[in-house]
Amino acid sequence: MEKFGMYAKFTAKPGRRDELAGILLEAAAAAQHVEECELYIVNISDTEPDVLWVTELWSSFEAHEASLSLEETKTAIQRAMPLIAGVEATKLKPIGGKGF
Amino acid sequence: MEKFGMYAKFTAKPGRRDELAGILLEAAAAAQHVEECELYIVNISDTEPDVLWVTELWSSFEAHEASLSLEETKTAIQRAMPLIAGVEATKLKPIGGKGF
Repeated sequence: MEKFGMYAKFTAKPGRRDELAGILLEAAAAAQHVEECELYIVNISDTEPDVLWVTELWSSFEAHEASLSLEETKTAIQRAMPLIAGVEATKLKPIGGKGF
Repeated sequence: MEKFGMYAKFTAKPGRRDELAGILLEAAAAAQHVEECELYIVNISDTEPDVLWVTELWSSFEAHEASLSLEETKTAIQRAMPLIAGVEATKLKPIGGKGF
């Protein structure tokens, strides 16, 4: 099965980045139990103070899609929505390397 | 020590992407022996046919900088240069998550 990767860029509303980071880190903690989720790393931008990037690696696109319909994902999204000004996703096909 | 992350976007010259991917995968294989390099994943873009993204995670910014002065890195860069139309780097401060 082909793996699936994503760089998800979250732009927080002014002053809400750290609160949003907290919710994303909780989502990452929940993902510890999801075998199909191989990476879910939360990053602060070096240059944009309101931005968070999440580096995601999944065993398949379907596994990522399935995670979106989990009850705890939906709850996290609902909590995060009021803090978010924008989201952009860069979708990737991982082909190899260290940590692949 | 603070970790360092980077999304490196390589735009290959037309028709040279797969050749460039080969060089990046060789660099990733060399990185297997570099303890400070935690991730070096080579990805194809879902939407841009000439683009490769490398997801990098390092134990520190200094470890990443040091890797650039290794003889094998310099050789790889020299081989890759003729295939590359452009490079952009998104620098990140990883703060936690799965695979952090």
